[in-house]
Formats: sequence, C-alpha cells, structure tokens
Amino acid sequence: MLAEFSVVPVGEGKSLSKDVARFVEFAEESGLDYRLGPMGTVVEGDWDEVMALIKKCHDSAKGGTGRALTRIAVDDSEGATGRITGKVASVEEKLGREVKK
Amino acid sequence: MLAEFSVVPVGEGKSLSKDVARFVEFAEESGLDYRLGPMGTVVEGDWDEVMALIKKCHDSAKGGTGRALTRIAVDDSEGATGRITGKVASVEEKLGREVKK
Amino acid sequence: MLAEFSVVPVGEGKSLSKDVARFVEFAEESGLDYRLGPMGTVVEGDWDEVMALIKKCHDSAKGGTGRALTRIAVDDSEGATGRITGKVASVEEKLGREVKK
Amino acid sequence: MLAEFSVVPVGEGKSLSKDVARFVEFAEESGLDYRLGPMGTVVEGDWDEVMALIKKCHDSAKGGTGRALTRIAVDDSEGATGRITGKVASVEEKLGREVKK
Repeated sequence: MLAEFSVVPVGEGKSLSKDVARFVEFAEESGLDYRLGPMGTVVEGDWDEVMALIKKCHDSAKGGTGRALTRIAVDDSEGATGRITGKVASVEEKLGREVKK
Repeated sequence: MLAEFSVVPVGEGKSLSKDVARFVEFAEESGLDYRLGPMGTVVEGDWDEVMALIKKCHDSAKGGTGRALTRIAVDDSEGATGRITGKVASVEEKLGREVKK
Repeated sequence: MLAEFSVVPVGEGKSLSKDVARFVEFAEESGLDYRLGPMGTVVEGDWDEVMALIKKCHDSAKGGTGRALTRIAVDDSEGATGRITGKVASVEEKLGREVKK
Repeated sequence: MLAEFSVVPVGEGKSLSKDVARFVEFAEESGLDYRLGPMGTVVEGDWDEVMALIKKCHDSAKGGTGRALTRIAVDDSEGATGRITGKVASVEEKLGREVKK
C-alpha cells in the first residue's frame, strides 16, 4: 500500500522544514521505503506500519503547538508492491519516454 | 481528534452509495460520534479508534475490486472534545447567526 | 459539481474560526449552495464559479500571514445537480432509515 | 504557488496509468514546471494557470466515464518561487545530508 501524508502544526511560524526534517528521520527509522516530495512524503508498507509512522509524525507536530492538521491519501492495490517507483514507471512505459519526477 | 475520510473502490460502477451505506454501519458499530456529509464522513475519537474504523471501511472497499483509494484529513487539538459540532458553533458565534450546515 | 475545501493560514494562532467565518460570508455572497462542516465547506456549482470562491478564501487567508495551505476535493458527475443533499439521501435510501448528518 | 493534484475517473478499470500519461502531456503543454510522483502530480505556477491545467485533466477524466474525483493540495507562499525543488532542498539543508526523493 502507498500513502502520502503531510502534517502541519497549527500556530507555528511560516517555515515548516524543521518539522519535515524530523518526519524524514522517523521515516528512515521505520525501515519503510519513502520519498520526500515538495507537497508530502510518500511511504510504502502495510496499513499498520504506515499508519504507525504517520501517527508518530502527527504526535510530534502536535506536541509543539498543541494542534496539528494531517492529510493522508492512500492507494492500496491488492498484492502489488514496488509501486513507489512502479506507478511512475508504468506511465513512462505508456508514453515511451521519461517524464520529470 | 476529528477525522474526515472518504474511501473509493477503483474499478467499480459509477454509484458508490452502497459502499457508503456500509461505512455508516461500521461507524455506528464503532460507537464513535460521526456525521455523514456529501464529500465524506467525519468521526471523532482518539487516533487508534478512528484509524481502526477507517481501516475497516478501506478493507471492505478493497475487498470488492482489489483496489481502493482513501483520503483522510485529521484535525487534532490537544484536550479538545465535542468539536464535531463545536467547530461550526464557534463560527456561528463569531458571525452572531446560524449558517447552513 | 461538488467541492469541499479547507483553507489554513500558516503561522497564525491556534484558532481559525475567524477565518472560516469570513469564508462563510464569501460563500453566501457567491450565491452558490454551501454547507459548513467541522472539517471543511462543501459548495455546489460549476468548476469556474466554485474555484473563484475557493480562490477568494485562499487569497484572503494568504493575505494575513503570507502563506496559506488549501485542500480541495471535487466530485463531479456529468449532468447531476442537487447532490449537496442528494448524496446523503441516496445512502439513507439504501439503508431504509436516517443517518447522522 | 505549488499544487499537487490527482484525478480519478469513477467506474473505470483498475489501471489508471493511461489517464495519468495524458495528464503529463497536458502538464508539458502548459509550460509549467511539474513533477510526476506515485501519488499525484506537483505543479508550480500562479493560481489561474495551475487551476486551468487541473481543470483540463479533470475534464478529460470526466469525459471517459461521466464522473471524476479530483483532489488538490495547494501551498502558496507570497513571493516564493522555485519551491518545486526548494522545499526538499531546505529539509536537506536542515539535516545536513541528502534524503530519498
């Protein structure tokens, strides 16, 4: 299963990169495959391990200001793995060329 | 904590109301307070019980076609409860009148 | 077309209800049918008029702190109208009873 | 302004890569900077040009089955550009090393 998530502490200053740096460390500690993008972090794993990671990031952000907003998008295809790179590869195959990624 | 979620099986017909009817039954069985809206279901509870409910809905949708897309938005304010009605009430207080809800 | 949106200024205090109160006023001025919920505002209309409203809310939030995060979910079914209440009604029909909404 | 979007036709088969391939072509025609990721496409530009591109993708998906679901996340920081790579670079700077991206 793939999930993309983004966690924002409410009431903090305008720069959130310090928070995101911490989320990356959590992702690395989780052992799950991940990719950091400009609008969120994509992670691949089963529901429980993915949600445990997102909860850790969420709790860490909430700990700072007392309120956090988290958005999550899940794409879960039975039995499919390697989709963190496979989905884009499949689009490139359709187009017969590389895309910006 | 408040969470809104929406689960869509990929590759099913154009009407999804039968799936949503099942999600409402899961929400009622969970004992959590919930509201069904036109774009998703809002539920109030702690992280683990809310995510257990969403997982149940997600798995049920995935069981049908083998692939499901789920989106979740969480708003979690330390120590705050009753926000499933309280957030809108607070906006009405600011405006000094009722709004459409 | 139905759209739900939520706009959050980054770097503001923990209460956002004053911003949402302003969004409700914009929704009312737009003449579009809307519903305020605990996790966002649902509005019904065609793409251009709905996006014009969301842009107005987004710009107003960005004007305060210089940075805003907006999330939008669109459900657009060719030729269908009255879905702001019709979708939930269709779930209730399936269940043969009323749900919390 | 950065926006990530994902468009899904309702009632189509389980593979959506053909649709996404078309969205990439629209993104390239738009002249905006974009990145295709496993959970959506990120694009950078001003509100009107970004939304015009998303509308084109949305309409194209809706044209197939008559119903499309689109989700959009916007991060808009006054006067900031180059954030399609800059946001991740800023996290790497905080960590003093590269991350998976």
